[in-house]
This record gives sequence, structure tokens and C-alpha cells, in this order.
Amino acid sequence: MKRTVIAPISLFFLILVLLLPGFTLPSQANQPNPGQQAQNQQRETHVSESIRRLLSTQVEAWNRGDLEGFMDGYWRSPDLTFFSGGNVSQGWQAALERYQRTYQGTGKEMGHLEFQDLKIDVLDPHAAVVTGKWQLTMSTGKKPHGLFTLILKDMKNGWHIVHDHTSSAEEK
Amino acid sequence: MKRTVIAPISLFFLILVLLLPGFTLPSQANQPNPGQQAQNQQRETHVSESIRRLLSTQVEAWNRGDLEGFMDGYWRSPDLTFFSGGNVSQGWQAALERYQRTYQGTGKEMGHLEFQDLKIDVLDPHAAVVTGKWQLTMSTGKKPHGLFTLILKDMKNGWHIVHDHTSSAEEK
Repeated sequence: MKRTVIAPISLFFLILVLLLPGFTLPSQANQPNPGQQAQNQQRETHVSESIRRLLSTQVEAWNRGDLEGFMDGYWRSPDLTFFSGGNVSQGWQAALERYQRTYQGTGKEMGHLEFQDLKIDVLDPHAAVVTGKWQLTMSTGKKPHGLFTLILKDMKNGWHIVHDHTSSAEEK
Repeated sequence: MKRTVIAPISLFFLILVLLLPGFTLPSQANQPNPGQQAQNQQRETHVSESIRRLLSTQVEAWNRGDLEGFMDGYWRSPDLTFFSGGNVSQGWQAALERYQRTYQGTGKEMGHLEFQDLKIDVLDPHAAVVTGKWQLTMSTGKKPHGLFTLILKDMKNGWHIVHDHTSSAEEK
């Protein structure tokens, strides 16, 4: 009689395991089904929107002269790397100081910042690459401009830029 | 009597499912166990080695004047993007032609290439970021140098650079 009791219990447990969300047979593991694909697509759209918002917030901060607000988009870590004009700024503080020297020194100005041609490539649920063009419009009418490549990661406190490579079209 | 036959079959199947490689209960799905962590570490090391080999092969090709060999490291696609000195080269062919104009025109030379301070960040099983310094030593003794940020992806035919942002310390 014992065995007749085990049967419905183990069958129930088996069905339960198979129905659990997230259960995948090994053969399915690397082949997202249409539902998963739609979910991935949705996640990528969500990540892209978060990153667009981060960049818009940065641009708004820059355009009101708020360099620290602009720098909030960056990972506040000594491991942030900022490449610009062949120079490496290692760490958030060094990147901020570089911006302060370049745009807030005597006789300097921040100008009006715009980003164009943004391309966001969500590589992973926690990492993305953004490429684009930047342009400043200065009070003199000059329009320095160039390109940037950003690596962003989803940290505990949201998405942040962990690496920035910026170059200028005037540089030659 | 039927039920007494089902019991061992369903139990056997249940045990089989639980023992299948790749089976994870949902609660474990986002928490790699020490075995998985070791496996991830091993995979990252393997990816880093593949990328280092790719870059070494590129440097060797450059230093024997083989620009097409050097370009084998890049994704042979119209979607490759190459940022340099504020200019965008869109696609593999455009990137090759830019190198040809810059380093193989009349009175030009490729020089001897070296990469330094390589940092490889494996973001995902299929994507990585590499940052580093480049330096050319020309026959005149000049040593143009600068920085690069590369995005690499594991394509069907191995790892390739899908985006290159290169800047020069001479650029100002």
C-alpha cells in the first residue's frame, strides 16, 4: 500500500517543478522562446529609456552650469575611467576636476551642450554601450564638437557611466 | 495495481530532471553557486585570452605592413563603427580605407605598433570592452600615441571588434 501513496505525491511534485517559473530543460536553456524574446525586448527598451533619461538629466545639469549634477551620471568610484584627448582621468574626482579646469577656469565657459545620433546597445541586463556626437555652443559662436563612447553598468543605485571615451573633431 | 507501477517511474523521472546539468530551481537562478562562479571565472579567463590573442595577431599584422591582416580583427560588416579624431567611419570597408589613406599613402608609413595597459572587461559571455594605450614608433623617431576603447563581440566566427574609439594624444 505504501507505494500507492508515493505515486500521486511524486507526480504532483514533478508537475509542480515543471510548472515553476524559470524552470528550463537544458536543451531550452540557450534558446529563448517567443515569450522570453518579448521579455528581453521589453527589458532592452526599459534599459534604453533609463539610459536616455540619465543622459538627458546630464545635459540639463550641464546647461544650467551644474557640473556636479552632470557628474551624477558617472560612477562615483576611483575605478571610473575617463579618456579624453589622449589623457586618462582615473576616478570620479579626477574626472570632475578635469571638467572644472577645462570649463570653469578663469575666462572659460561651459557653453550649451547637445547630444546627437545616440546609439544604445544593451549588451547584457547589466551593461550597455552608448555612442553619439556632442556639440557645445559657446557665447563666441564657436561650436566645438566630437564623439563619445560610454560604457554604462547597472549598479546598486541605478545605471551609471563607468567608462567615457570622448574625442573632439578639432583635435588633430 | 496501476498506481504502484507509476510510482517508481515518476520518481525516477523526477530524480533524472533534478540531476540534469543546467537544471536550476528558480530561487537559485540568479545566485551562482561556488561551482558556477568558478565556471564563470574560467569562462572570463578564456575570453580574455582569446581577446589578447586577437590583439596580438593584429599588432603582428600591422608590424609586417599587413593592413588587411590587421583589419581581420574587426567585424567585417557595414555596422562596424570606427571613431577617430572626431570622425566616424561606418563599416569595415570605410575603416580599412581610412587606415590606407592615413598610413599607406605617398610618403606615409605604418611605423611599429605597440599596445600597453590593456584592460579587458568581460561584460557578458558574448561581449567585452577593452581599453588601452597605443604607440607608433616611426622611422623619423616620432612616437605618435594615444588611447583606445574597443567593444568586442563573440560572433559566429569568433571574437571581433564591433566598435573602435581611438584618440591621439597629439590631437588638441
